[in-house]
Amino acid sequence: MKIIIVGATGTIGKHVTKALQKEHEVIAVGSRSGDLQVNISDPDSIKAMYEKAGPFDALICVAGDGHFGPLEKMTDADFRISVNSKLMGQVNLVLIGQRYINPNGSFTLTSGSLADDPVVLGASLSAVNGAIDGFVRGAAIELKNGVRINAVGPDVVEESPGYFPFFHGHEPVSMHRVTLAYIKSVLGAHTGKTYYVFG
Amino acid sequence: MKIIIVGATGTIGKHVTKALQKEHEVIAVGSRSGDLQVNISDPDSIKAMYEKAGPFDALICVAGDGHFGPLEKMTDADFRISVNSKLMGQVNLVLIGQRYINPNGSFTLTSGSLADDPVVLGASLSAVNGAIDGFVRGAAIELKNGVRINAVGPDVVEESPGYFPFFHGHEPVSMHRVTLAYIKSVLGAHTGKTYYVFG
Repeated sequence: MKIIIVGATGTIGKHVTKALQKEHEVIAVGSRSGDLQVNISDPDSIKAMYEKAGPFDALICVAGDGHFGPLEKMTDADFRISVNSKLMGQVNLVLIGQRYINPNGSFTLTSGSLADDPVVLGASLSAVNGAIDGFVRGAAIELKNGVRINAVGPDVVEESPGYFPFFHGHEPVSMHRVTLAYIKSVLGAHTGKTYYVFG
Repeated sequence: MKIIIVGATGTIGKHVTKALQKEHEVIAVGSRSGDLQVNISDPDSIKAMYEKAGPFDALICVAGDGHFGPLEKMTDADFRISVNSKLMGQVNLVLIGQRYINPNGSFTLTSGSLADDPVVLGASLSAVNGAIDGFVRGAAIELKNGVRINAVGPDVVEESPGYFPFFHGHEPVSMHRVTLAYIKSVLGAHTGKTYYVFG
């Protein structure tokens, strides 16, 4: 299987890449590193990435910036950091990628536990994660040729200790468990689901 | 109670306005009609609306455009119609409105059943409704001075027959039931909830 991983060198991406490249052809994509580069906030850059990658069987996105800060001071511009990157970046990977993906392929996006289990400072991410969850449900019933779409919604992960002080009472989830959720999406048969990985 | 209703003359808004103005001071806001006008896609217009309205106890938004069309042909620009109006319009009503609302006031936004129960052509609305649901959960734990926030998520409503052909097997919900959900949010005590009104 030929699998494009956007964010392949990131905290989660490097584990997912390591697990999948044992048995599959992985095209590692980063913003600056990897086999190919992409700026997911730019639809033209996404199109160029797909043109270079060629037809593929699975796209995993473990990339996307978000704004983390107090609601009291949040502005339209702050909120749109999350919207333009984590939401529209991932949406455009699907809207554009549906023209390049092989029949019976799959898209796996990244949502997050904040959609359902918010923390202080995370309101724009609660929104964007909720949007990704809604999008995969909506897109799943329209994708053609057996193409599937799911999301993985991780809690704070064990390799992001910088976030621990903001996730009171959350047990950081292991990279192993999070990686398994991406594998379930790519190698399984579900569509329209979010796999939450709660601590 | 002084209640601002954005979209007061719309399909749902006119019923909510009629129900609440019996016992409350309602400021009806429209894009072109009403006591005040606002373009919710423009943060400056929202700020001007709040400046004119003065301090208030509840804000209900039953406005927001969305794109309805096939995923196969959907573009970034199509998707952003929903993001810029129904999502960012409502988010900005809260981000800006939190500086004008009275203590113990409430915001009530409009989500929709497509977040959980998608239909063909509705993927951008599934996303945006999911975003509104996530946002109210996230914002609820940060709003100050006892201010609450909820959403109402209606199925297709009985007075929108133009949408019936796209909602196969949905029983259109009565304007009465939808109106009750807004009243529950404004006059009740919950926060961080979406009241789904399914057919």
